[in-house]
Amino acid sequence: MHESCDAGRLTETLSQIKKKFVVLSGKGGVGKSTVSVNLAVALALSGKKTGILDSDLHGPSVPKMLGIENANLSGDDTHIEPVVCYDGMLKVMSVQFMLRNVNDSVIWRGPLKHSVISQFIGYTVWGDLDYLIIDSPPGTGDEPLSVVQSAMPDGAIIVTTPQEIATFDVKKSIDFCDKLKLKVVGIIENMSGFVCPHCNTETAIFSSGGGEKMADDVGAPFLGRIPIDPSFVSLSDKGHVFFDKGAESLAMNAMKSIIAKIIA
Amino acid sequence: MHESCDAGRLTETLSQIKKKFVVLSGKGGVGKSTVSVNLAVALALSGKKTGILDSDLHGPSVPKMLGIENANLSGDDTHIEPVVCYDGMLKVMSVQFMLRNVNDSVIWRGPLKHSVISQFIGYTVWGDLDYLIIDSPPGTGDEPLSVVQSAMPDGAIIVTTPQEIATFDVKKSIDFCDKLKLKVVGIIENMSGFVCPHCNTETAIFSSGGGEKMADDVGAPFLGRIPIDPSFVSLSDKGHVFFDKGAESLAMNAMKSIIAKIIA
Repeated sequence: MHESCDAGRLTETLSQIKKKFVVLSGKGGVGKSTVSVNLAVALALSGKKTGILDSDLHGPSVPKMLGIENANLSGDDTHIEPVVCYDGMLKVMSVQFMLRNVNDSVIWRGPLKHSVISQFIGYTVWGDLDYLIIDSPPGTGDEPLSVVQSAMPDGAIIVTTPQEIATFDVKKSIDFCDKLKLKVVGIIENMSGFVCPHCNTETAIFSSGGGEKMADDVGAPFLGRIPIDPSFVSLSDKGHVFFDKGAESLAMNAMKSIIAKIIA
Repeated sequence: MHESCDAGRLTETLSQIKKKFVVLSGKGGVGKSTVSVNLAVALALSGKKTGILDSDLHGPSVPKMLGIENANLSGDDTHIEPVVCYDGMLKVMSVQFMLRNVNDSVIWRGPLKHSVISQFIGYTVWGDLDYLIIDSPPGTGDEPLSVVQSAMPDGAIIVTTPQEIATFDVKKSIDFCDKLKLKVVGIIENMSGFVCPHCNTETAIFSSGGGEKMADDVGAPFLGRIPIDPSFVSLSDKGHVFFDKGAESLAMNAMKSIIAKIIA
């Protein structure tokens, strides 16, 4: 696990993947993994061959959100068979599949993390894919840097929550994309308002409009607002994906509209 | 900035600090920085000489939450004067104070991050402190590892939100503490329920009770639940600290009770 995947092998693997998007945010807890998983499942359900790479080595959420956190990988040191779900349309790779105990922590330092991520990208047997969605941990550190350098994504989808303390951090992600010459596909404002299920009145718990304002400020496309919907959480805790199992709602309409914009 | 602070200097600096706590979470966006800042301000307001170190190099939130994000550091390469607020009772150190532009991103890799954090701890002129509170970025990677190795904290305060997908990640922080033989002071369940200001009915937006259940599971003290309160966000966006400027409320009572337990 200490050697990075070589450039030739990376190029070979990546040449079979038509489109690659990385989901970024300067701030944690804004819903990057939720967006990544829902986007990947939407693509798979629409008949696209899709992969999702969970590049969060310390807090991998993707397998748990898909209900496959106890799955195991097969293959050898340089050919890793990803875990497959959604009738073979979705291939999933995450460090979670390598942990002996689901609650084990990964305490690797940066250089090892770069090797692991480059291997996850290059040694995984993705095969022909229409889309690879790469979920990343918060910040602008080793993991997103390794993802951008190794996978050369076509663009970044940036997720924020509306409050200023979040958009403040997330602006750093825009700066990160600028420095790495990575195209910003657009910005999503998540957790934008909560409609009380008892009285139907909306409260802007985490403020409102900050994502759109930030998109304006930095000249990036604004993809839309997703309101807080407790069913994201309750479904996710059961390993169900909102886009697949959620009811029609404001949040579902928002999600569908955003995904349509990304695919277009 | 490439050389770590040497062990002798670290020991000398740390010998003047009575108690050191690190605030950890496997998951981002659960309120680590909010807890760190409110705890530090509570200590400062109660007459304790307090320091707060923001060890989040990619998403530093502490200065913004204190309304001092445009402050600058002084000193030389090996003696950094922290930014001081709350009538001299609170000393603050963050990478934010070193950025030329507030929206600049820091794209350092792991080994450099270790050097920077060890310097932040050892080269900062903290002087005599009753308490040093160390806020950390999410996960179990370079920054928390460097904090634990360099600052040798007396204990870790672990913050989670109630939903399973969060406690799942946060359990990894407990494993991290076990592996590093760091005492868990206790677990805080943040964003635990939302009382609609229009109809006074509570909704468990991010589920409820997951933090307490996790504390039970891992045999760690449970410090309490803090409900969602939009005034945390609105005050924070203005650079005001909830503990100092917030109104009496369920969230304020919860915060006071938790802080009392930590100090005891």
